[in-house]
Amino acid sequence: MRALRFHGPRDLRVDEVPAPDPPPGTVEVDVAWCGICASDVHEFRDGPHVIPRPDRPHPLTGEHLPVTLGHEISGHVSRVGQAVSTVEVGVPVAVNPLLSCGRCNQCLRGLHHLCRSSAVLGLSGRGGGLAERVVVPASLVYGLPDSVTLEQGALAEPLSVAWHAARLAGAPNLTTALVVGVGPVGLALVLVLRALGVPHVLVAARRTGRRTELAEAFGAEAIVGVDDPTPARSTRALTSGEGVDAAFDAAGTDEAVNIAIGAVRRRGTVVNVALRNGHAGVDLNRVLGHEITIRGSTGYLNDHPEVLRHLAAGAFTGVERLVTGRIDLDHAVPDGFEPLLHRKNDHVKILVAPTSSRR
Amino acid sequence: MRALRFHGPRDLRVDEVPAPDPPPGTVEVDVAWCGICASDVHEFRDGPHVIPRPDRPHPLTGEHLPVTLGHEISGHVSRVGQAVSTVEVGVPVAVNPLLSCGRCNQCLRGLHHLCRSSAVLGLSGRGGGLAERVVVPASLVYGLPDSVTLEQGALAEPLSVAWHAARLAGAPNLTTALVVGVGPVGLALVLVLRALGVPHVLVAARRTGRRTELAEAFGAEAIVGVDDPTPARSTRALTSGEGVDAAFDAAGTDEAVNIAIGAVRRRGTVVNVALRNGHAGVDLNRVLGHEITIRGSTGYLNDHPEVLRHLAAGAFTGVERLVTGRIDLDHAVPDGFEPLLHRKNDHVKILVAPTSSRR
Repeated sequence: MRALRFHGPRDLRVDEVPAPDPPPGTVEVDVAWCGICASDVHEFRDGPHVIPRPDRPHPLTGEHLPVTLGHEISGHVSRVGQAVSTVEVGVPVAVNPLLSCGRCNQCLRGLHHLCRSSAVLGLSGRGGGLAERVVVPASLVYGLPDSVTLEQGALAEPLSVAWHAARLAGAPNLTTALVVGVGPVGLALVLVLRALGVPHVLVAARRTGRRTELAEAFGAEAIVGVDDPTPARSTRALTSGEGVDAAFDAAGTDEAVNIAIGAVRRRGTVVNVALRNGHAGVDLNRVLGHEITIRGSTGYLNDHPEVLRHLAAGAFTGVERLVTGRIDLDHAVPDGFEPLLHRKNDHVKILVAPTSSRR
Repeated sequence: MRALRFHGPRDLRVDEVPAPDPPPGTVEVDVAWCGICASDVHEFRDGPHVIPRPDRPHPLTGEHLPVTLGHEISGHVSRVGQAVSTVEVGVPVAVNPLLSCGRCNQCLRGLHHLCRSSAVLGLSGRGGGLAERVVVPASLVYGLPDSVTLEQGALAEPLSVAWHAARLAGAPNLTTALVVGVGPVGLALVLVLRALGVPHVLVAARRTGRRTELAEAFGAEAIVGVDDPTPARSTRALTSGEGVDAAFDAAGTDEAVNIAIGAVRRRGTVVNVALRNGHAGVDLNRVLGHEITIRGSTGYLNDHPEVLRHLAAGAFTGVERLVTGRIDLDHAVPDGFEPLLHRKNDHVKILVAPTSSRR
């Protein structure tokens, strides 16, 4: 089958690779759509970062580069391995790509997303979604409700990232929230917070641009300009001077995390959901003086079912507008990775249909 | 009466000031002991920092420098204002020096320590404990149980700072904890965590010195050398590789907060209880990847009664060893502030007896 593999920085190739038979407990998914994630672009730009190098194979998968990319996956179950009773051939599914060992203390406590040797399908080996087919543990595929499209199924992964972060921040028990950043996760956060019923969602971003317009379309009540002199103070002014209940750093800059810290109320919560390069310069004195809580949010844990239920109910108003491009595997680099790297303000989520040539 | 007042950096003077009559709802305390806090020394070195300047009087007290210093106060009630029924003349007490407005949203929610115009007796005006007498709201004095000495009463304030931080970290529901730093708050944290029954308390500090010896005497199970190459890894090695449940930055350096972040387990808690100069360089990627929680802890809120109860029960083993000097008001600068500034590794808490000359 054909698969887009990472060989090195700026070196992604559509290779012909063998399609493995699904081992017991797994299913093979015929990929319909796979989204390109910022982490994929990060690897493309100057990786390998998370992708295992030849001298350090991944502890769980045992694999190293070249690896197939893509972890925002929807498709149809095409084959099932032995001892699989939970899903049948032909069912449309969304995939949770987080693999865990099942044996470490985190896994034994049920925190599979914090597994000490966690792996991501599409980054750590064992295939990925930017291929015609991918083999996945049966416990990590979720049948799509009737009203959920395969395109929406591919969005379930980034929506789950946002869902997990929103729940860690205390949603739905928030009255006011600020999202700093309007990348895919920031925009997904606006959708999720509104779907969870948070009445007042503010967004800190540049005042103009496609992404900012989307934030407004998704239900952001006001845009706080990140280029204004005092975005945190502007946010507090929008909340009677008190500050928001929770703020999300979905941008990964020092400016972003300190806007979040400056914008939350005393005893408010800042959730960090964006990786950055190196250490962050953080106003910990304000964290202390206002007894602010900073929480890190990584991936998701049992969040997919809730996301799919809300997708089915139409709770993510305008979610299809997250998709700003639809391409096939042969165009993944020039029309997917390249524009996401060089013209990212024009795009949010680009979906790839790896099997489109044979459909 | 005589009072030690801050006039400017390195300019503390024993002044003769009027002793105010206690207004309704307040009591006058004849000060027995008042501890010198690191924040007092910070003001002495290069203040005013928290102390209000003449051009910006404190919003709650309306006062500005010169102000009387001292907020770790014990003594006897010497006069009571009108409408005070909760405390009588002659009773030995410890003082909570945090004043609040009672009207802002924080106060209305019961979070008086996060009052938007909070003041500290001994820093913000309305007198302080480094004086013969101080006037305090009746609601902020706590009668000392029979077995608690006046010296211990003056330690109730720093112990309450540690108590508050320990509770925010989840104590007593912790199995393992790391305290980074062995200043007064760090050492008080060791005492408090042990008193709350946390079985394994580790300390990161220099391997030698009076303060480190005290940490061991107070029940620290092991000392992790902060000058070792990898103190966080050494801490994890002491906890089967998992990391501690909670870690405290009681030092206020970038090194300290990152040792704490590196030492906690996945989903562990880091409590920041030390102010610093400027922003901190923080490993937020680890906070994200391990879903760590960072919480700020400021002062105390209804913690004094619990601290006094545990003092009465003898739960803070060896607490009297926190006191490394006892002096009178005339020696407060040369034998108190100066050694705490220049030879702080030789000292923990120096207590001043402002009325000793007349006792």
